[in-house]
Amino acid sequence: MRHVHPSEWSWRAGEGEYVHHWLKELMQGESPDMILYGAPLSRSSISPSAASAYPLEFRKMGKGFTTYNLEEDIDLRAFTVRDAGDIAMHTTDILLSHSRIEEATEDIVQTFSSSTTCMIGGDHSVTACAVRGVKKAYPTERIGILQFDTHLDVRDPSELGPANGTPIRQLIDGEIVQGSDVINIGLHGYFNAASLVTYAKQHNIDMVTLRAARRKGVAETVRTKLAELAERVDRIYVTVDMDVLDIAVAPGVPASTPGGMRADELFDALKVVGEHSEVRHIDFVCLDPMRDVATMATVKTGMYAFLEFVTGRVNQTRGK
Amino acid sequence: MRHVHPSEWSWRAGEGEYVHHWLKELMQGESPDMILYGAPLSRSSISPSAASAYPLEFRKMGKGFTTYNLEEDIDLRAFTVRDAGDIAMHTTDILLSHSRIEEATEDIVQTFSSSTTCMIGGDHSVTACAVRGVKKAYPTERIGILQFDTHLDVRDPSELGPANGTPIRQLIDGEIVQGSDVINIGLHGYFNAASLVTYAKQHNIDMVTLRAARRKGVAETVRTKLAELAERVDRIYVTVDMDVLDIAVAPGVPASTPGGMRADELFDALKVVGEHSEVRHIDFVCLDPMRDVATMATVKTGMYAFLEFVTGRVNQTRGK
Amino acid sequence: MRHVHPSEWSWRAGEGEYVHHWLKELMQGESPDMILYGAPLSRSSISPSAASAYPLEFRKMGKGFTTYNLEEDIDLRAFTVRDAGDIAMHTTDILLSHSRIEEATEDIVQTFSSSTTCMIGGDHSVTACAVRGVKKAYPTERIGILQFDTHLDVRDPSELGPANGTPIRQLIDGEIVQGSDVINIGLHGYFNAASLVTYAKQHNIDMVTLRAARRKGVAETVRTKLAELAERVDRIYVTVDMDVLDIAVAPGVPASTPGGMRADELFDALKVVGEHSEVRHIDFVCLDPMRDVATMATVKTGMYAFLEFVTGRVNQTRGK
Amino acid sequence: MRHVHPSEWSWRAGEGEYVHHWLKELMQGESPDMILYGAPLSRSSISPSAASAYPLEFRKMGKGFTTYNLEEDIDLRAFTVRDAGDIAMHTTDILLSHSRIEEATEDIVQTFSSSTTCMIGGDHSVTACAVRGVKKAYPTERIGILQFDTHLDVRDPSELGPANGTPIRQLIDGEIVQGSDVINIGLHGYFNAASLVTYAKQHNIDMVTLRAARRKGVAETVRTKLAELAERVDRIYVTVDMDVLDIAVAPGVPASTPGGMRADELFDALKVVGEHSEVRHIDFVCLDPMRDVATMATVKTGMYAFLEFVTGRVNQTRGK
Amino acid sequence: MRHVHPSEWSWRAGEGEYVHHWLKELMQGESPDMILYGAPLSRSSISPSAASAYPLEFRKMGKGFTTYNLEEDIDLRAFTVRDAGDIAMHTTDILLSHSRIEEATEDIVQTFSSSTTCMIGGDHSVTACAVRGVKKAYPTERIGILQFDTHLDVRDPSELGPANGTPIRQLIDGEIVQGSDVINIGLHGYFNAASLVTYAKQHNIDMVTLRAARRKGVAETVRTKLAELAERVDRIYVTVDMDVLDIAVAPGVPASTPGGMRADELFDALKVVGEHSEVRHIDFVCLDPMRDVATMATVKTGMYAFLEFVTGRVNQTRGK
Amino acid sequence: MRHVHPSEWSWRAGEGEYVHHWLKELMQGESPDMILYGAPLSRSSISPSAASAYPLEFRKMGKGFTTYNLEEDIDLRAFTVRDAGDIAMHTTDILLSHSRIEEATEDIVQTFSSSTTCMIGGDHSVTACAVRGVKKAYPTERIGILQFDTHLDVRDPSELGPANGTPIRQLIDGEIVQGSDVINIGLHGYFNAASLVTYAKQHNIDMVTLRAARRKGVAETVRTKLAELAERVDRIYVTVDMDVLDIAVAPGVPASTPGGMRADELFDALKVVGEHSEVRHIDFVCLDPMRDVATMATVKTGMYAFLEFVTGRVNQTRGK
Repeated sequence: MRHVHPSEWSWRAGEGEYVHHWLKELMQGESPDMILYGAPLSRSSISPSAASAYPLEFRKMGKGFTTYNLEEDIDLRAFTVRDAGDIAMHTTDILLSHSRIEEATEDIVQTFSSSTTCMIGGDHSVTACAVRGVKKAYPTERIGILQFDTHLDVRDPSELGPANGTPIRQLIDGEIVQGSDVINIGLHGYFNAASLVTYAKQHNIDMVTLRAARRKGVAETVRTKLAELAERVDRIYVTVDMDVLDIAVAPGVPASTPGGMRADELFDALKVVGEHSEVRHIDFVCLDPMRDVATMATVKTGMYAFLEFVTGRVNQTRGK
Repeated sequence: MRHVHPSEWSWRAGEGEYVHHWLKELMQGESPDMILYGAPLSRSSISPSAASAYPLEFRKMGKGFTTYNLEEDIDLRAFTVRDAGDIAMHTTDILLSHSRIEEATEDIVQTFSSSTTCMIGGDHSVTACAVRGVKKAYPTERIGILQFDTHLDVRDPSELGPANGTPIRQLIDGEIVQGSDVINIGLHGYFNAASLVTYAKQHNIDMVTLRAARRKGVAETVRTKLAELAERVDRIYVTVDMDVLDIAVAPGVPASTPGGMRADELFDALKVVGEHSEVRHIDFVCLDPMRDVATMATVKTGMYAFLEFVTGRVNQTRGK
Repeated sequence: MRHVHPSEWSWRAGEGEYVHHWLKELMQGESPDMILYGAPLSRSSISPSAASAYPLEFRKMGKGFTTYNLEEDIDLRAFTVRDAGDIAMHTTDILLSHSRIEEATEDIVQTFSSSTTCMIGGDHSVTACAVRGVKKAYPTERIGILQFDTHLDVRDPSELGPANGTPIRQLIDGEIVQGSDVINIGLHGYFNAASLVTYAKQHNIDMVTLRAARRKGVAETVRTKLAELAERVDRIYVTVDMDVLDIAVAPGVPASTPGGMRADELFDALKVVGEHSEVRHIDFVCLDPMRDVATMATVKTGMYAFLEFVTGRVNQTRGK
Repeated sequence: MRHVHPSEWSWRAGEGEYVHHWLKELMQGESPDMILYGAPLSRSSISPSAASAYPLEFRKMGKGFTTYNLEEDIDLRAFTVRDAGDIAMHTTDILLSHSRIEEATEDIVQTFSSSTTCMIGGDHSVTACAVRGVKKAYPTERIGILQFDTHLDVRDPSELGPANGTPIRQLIDGEIVQGSDVINIGLHGYFNAASLVTYAKQHNIDMVTLRAARRKGVAETVRTKLAELAERVDRIYVTVDMDVLDIAVAPGVPASTPGGMRADELFDALKVVGEHSEVRHIDFVCLDPMRDVATMATVKTGMYAFLEFVTGRVNQTRGK
Repeated sequence: MRHVHPSEWSWRAGEGEYVHHWLKELMQGESPDMILYGAPLSRSSISPSAASAYPLEFRKMGKGFTTYNLEEDIDLRAFTVRDAGDIAMHTTDILLSHSRIEEATEDIVQTFSSSTTCMIGGDHSVTACAVRGVKKAYPTERIGILQFDTHLDVRDPSELGPANGTPIRQLIDGEIVQGSDVINIGLHGYFNAASLVTYAKQHNIDMVTLRAARRKGVAETVRTKLAELAERVDRIYVTVDMDVLDIAVAPGVPASTPGGMRADELFDALKVVGEHSEVRHIDFVCLDPMRDVATMATVKTGMYAFLEFVTGRVNQTRGK
Repeated sequence: MRHVHPSEWSWRAGEGEYVHHWLKELMQGESPDMILYGAPLSRSSISPSAASAYPLEFRKMGKGFTTYNLEEDIDLRAFTVRDAGDIAMHTTDILLSHSRIEEATEDIVQTFSSSTTCMIGGDHSVTACAVRGVKKAYPTERIGILQFDTHLDVRDPSELGPANGTPIRQLIDGEIVQGSDVINIGLHGYFNAASLVTYAKQHNIDMVTLRAARRKGVAETVRTKLAELAERVDRIYVTVDMDVLDIAVAPGVPASTPGGMRADELFDALKVVGEHSEVRHIDFVCLDPMRDVATMATVKTGMYAFLEFVTGRVNQTRGK
């Protein structure tokens, strides 16, 4: 029949130039530069969240981005990313879902030991699971955490269970990570109770407030902090809680606040993060696409942030 | 200081004429006509939901309604309603939250054996817990269920756990209620998979489609069905899944659909329900106020629906 | 890797029970009961419209509907529908796009001469093209049109070109269809200029106002009108301009108005339409998903309407 | 310069067929069938309202409606309507604004004694002013009021001042109108405190609940009630508080409620109102366009309602 | 009954760590560091505004903020704030409401002569009243005003009455404050008519444009300007019209504009303001929560801004 | 009639101080400093757009801006701007609409050879037409283009027709403008496919990324680039694709992205542009008011941007 094509045919035309095509499904036997996987869990969130919908929306947003970084004049296609899919979450058993994230991450980081891994959350509770998975795969290695966040996430799991306000505390109390190996960048304002800051101080978490980071620039601060951390640890896990961003630029993150980080600051910082060779794992969490505005500004910001990390990774691969 | 008053002072002026004042907190030793309590749980919902926020929004909406029913010319203040508060939910342990709903309901229906009870959900999973609580309090009684719903809610808990699509099946498979003692009113369209209808037929659930109910009027159909059910059972539990309403009138119910019940049909039906003496328990579930439109139309509809039931109850009390 | 699956894996689980799975892509050599195809064109709309996005959104909405009609107790899977995809539209050449719709329709109705065809628009200009395509395939047959619409769509193409306000006039002036073989159901209010009504009267278009249709019921009126039309013509083309619906139920249709048809009236009417054997072609137009509300109420209504037609078709096939 | 025209040129093309052109500015010496004027005041509203913006939005909406009523097959252009403009409101002096409405109405109804007058509000406080203006112009005549409203509007002005909840009480207590000459149609639900209903009963206001009106149809009820009222009074003032409509159809009216009147019921009733010769004045109040939804559904409903009244007026003029 | 608690029980758990608990109701005999009170009046606004709803929303937002300032490492609980409630506003008598604000402020600043006072508006008309109240309490003192605003607010009250565009002119013309003791920070763009700037120049208002302020930083500019002003006056009243903020960060302020101040600039400036000992009174006006976006970004920004002032105040108290 | 005035009377009061009054309709024989005209075409947009509605909304927004620039202390009324109206667009014939834009622009720039021209789009396809019109009027002159844009707009018209992604390529391939005479400012991120950048490099388009521009400031960069360009060409055409702005500040521009230009950067740059004497033509495109947020932030930003250009022009005229 003349002119009739399967309904998404138009997207196939530009094949190869858009993120959508480059970010292919993982095939048996491949060994890509980066493995991407989703952890669509947000019923562990203290306040209601649909961050579980982000992995799917993240992938769909690939249609709106090309693989070419114009500022850096590099083509991301030099770097292979494969999508392993999502971890199967149970509908009501949160602990089971958590253990699956841990096990899946363990498998992934073991199987693809030379790949960077990127997990798309989900709420912040998934980070604790993933870091435990990494630890299981590499039990003798010391893991450092670089956390972009407006919050410390050291609330007490004995009270809340392993909810989204607790991951850093789970890891410290569980002796997976030392408090002094955790760097939090982006803290500001009135969003952490005094008692939580006391905990953070007791455990020597490195609290870098947004104002402090801005003094020499967020990206530059990140570079310095990563260098320091890399001296102490064997591998670095980076967790990006999208609520680090200002509420005006991240309306689709339920816990974002006024006075937060600008998008360009996060973008630049993530390029630096990508360039650092000891960074082996990253996650992006807490973006709830069902609360995003009509323009999907937050989901777009999430994709952009991811690509900046990849850009850094390309630079790192090239030995830049 | 002249003219200065505590900030909600203006509401105190009309004290006594608004639902907000009539719906008082339960005090020790009271024995009201109706006990109201909240079950703010929705992390058991298959798709993301903030129905956990409904109990609080429901109470706040009391400011927008008077206690006087103009159509019936009756004042609801003749009927005492006391608010026992909310059941404490755990942040991540859904099973624990469920057992608390069961235990709290058992206590309430036992302590206030002559009161009508009204539970404000939460997603539909809370209904299974509440009915089990009633059963524990009255183990020898046969319980019938009248369900307003676009869905059968007989999905398989062995697959999903006790999620919001499963409550009726939990109760039938758990032998708390017989399938033939369940009446579902409001089914229509393409929202129940064939396999679920097969289950319903096998267990003799009385499926009254919306079109069938409209033939002699929804309210009249409810009256007939309640009369039939009352002959078989000892007490009737009514569960109102707000998704029975049309999507145009209930935008704040994630699973509402086109072709659903009109608000006035539900209102009239609930007055009939309230008038029936064997109806002892009711719940309202699945209203997510965070998805409601700016006018709060759905929360208003929820309050209106509740008051229609109370109006019926007043009539029933008066021996009408 | 444990627990990890391709990202849309969960949808595959219930395969077979949802519209999404039943509405399969057309394969070579198949001869289904119905062929579905999209005409994603709306730059021909007088006022700005993104109805071009509807074919894609329509298909995605298949995830929210099962194939089981509970009211009628029939399973639509007895009826095969295959999706031929979308007609390739040119970005700027509207006439070329129009001729492609005409040619594609000609091919489809010829190739699948025993299938019902269903075109998903697009704005209403696509109907003129499709009817011309049918005429080319069956030049000796007399075609009748049943139009659900708040508007006559007889504006002058010599002034506007073949825009979305003109299709019926194009067909009458082009002698493809006789005015007296056009039935318009759903007219009301103040949305057709006096001069257009004059044209309609001159060409004997059968104008059935909404109030007139409601006198014996919209569905019953449609049944009678189809019977009359079938006596005169060889095949009937049904075009459903979704703006026939009331603005409260179809917020995502730019030209919907207050005082329009209720969703349940349209649903019932489309079942009757589906049951009529001389109805061979149908289209659904003018639904702009980018203006829909957050609940996607209008897209859901569009899918429901389509399924009601299919239900009628199943009944018709069964010889009911 | 080729092709360049003043920017609203396109509207001039169809001149004469749209409400926008028919509803012309009043010129010196004209004596039209109807005088339209605006009372853009809503700072007298108890809760915040931008109903002051309605007169302007109402006029703009004229672009979306033709002058031809398809159901009735009549052209409204047979009836002349002239727009006198808006009454100048003071920014902060509400009493001054009120007295201006009273004086302007007095002048208008005196100058155009044979014209129907239509005032576009504003909040409901403007009605008290307008009726007082009519009374001043015709001090010996007995005025009856037909009120479409979900509320009685008999709150106490000694407490609130002449706010939007008080107009009917102002008129009764001020002995402008007798309570028994006030008919309220559309009351329902829980939106009038018991004490206000007591006042209404004491003053013999004719309270016709929505359910009562529906028993023989809203329009038919209005016809009967108008006939009764006409026997007692010399002229009838009709006030349409748009909050009489259901919240699903009138989202842009801050006080609309679930369970309210349908748009088609109001439309039909207003045609009957227009047909009654003793109805000499009408107003439309409480529509806040700044809260309307993106489709402007409420403003469209307001224009439609106005045109239905005009349609009735045309019938009345024709001696139908 | 097991597990059942009054419905806001969960908030009580963290008592002491959230602003909500710290900002307690004023008790007889207390002498706190700061008195907070609301002036819920916005019917004096030229364009429709619901800024009258801000005092209540401001208080509710206390649940979303802790008392701990992480950047400064100080706990605000060292500083006592007590909430005196709202000034009772009349429903329709704006002048009466204004005189009550004046009298209430007079009483408060006299009774709590050593406390800082903070008034939450309301539209900007309330500032004129409050400053007059301060003047009545301290008639021999010279008052200076620091105004954060995109507008001069010197429109003519003889034309508009004491509306929200006029407060500064009321105070200058009324000889309460000298024009040269008014500093306006944040002016930019095309939002002040030439004639108003002429007035400002004639009265020597110190107009510091946003661009000028940014040259050495907004906070630094404020520090310098306060120092200059403090040399001339006895006490300083600070008024924060939230429309000084950019429209992208303050969507809930009807008069906010593109090109306005960033939130972090205002935050830093307010800390400096708080640190200055001669600043004795502050107000926050013109935030309309009913126009805020779904995230409540503007109300959050308003609370953050208030807390930054308090942080400065703590520093000032500590003699920093 | 006392107090009654034509409905927009209030606007007439302040005549002369608002943009709305200053931006008058062009009268026969006038020779203003600037000619403004609209090109309301957006059906040529690749993705659906209602940028065709911008010319009208732009003009209406004149009510919200005064003619006085407070930062620069200049009154724009010293500069005359006349509105020639809109170019008549055909409803369906895009090529005809394009040729009309070309012809109208040719006429305007010829007739008003000493005036600056400003065209309000429409989508970006209109720029190609306008530049061709300028070329026809001045065939011997070399035209340079300064483009503010996130995209290169060099997609292939042989594939898409003259759509909104193609204007710069149309002009280069059509030999109207040399690639090396095109400066693009504002490129960033992942929004231009690698193949398009290859084209741009081959044709020596001067790609100034946003980061590069920020190094010495966007405005300063523009000043330098204009100076360079002015040495090579005879006249400069400036095209402002509003998608150059960040998505947080320009939600009403469908293609705006995170990481884009700030509003104040664009404002400052446009003042510099206005000051440059060889800039003779400017356009503003791709702003879709139907997607703007409720505050109309994007339309306001568009008007502000326009006025900054005019401010520059005033400075230029004064010989500053």
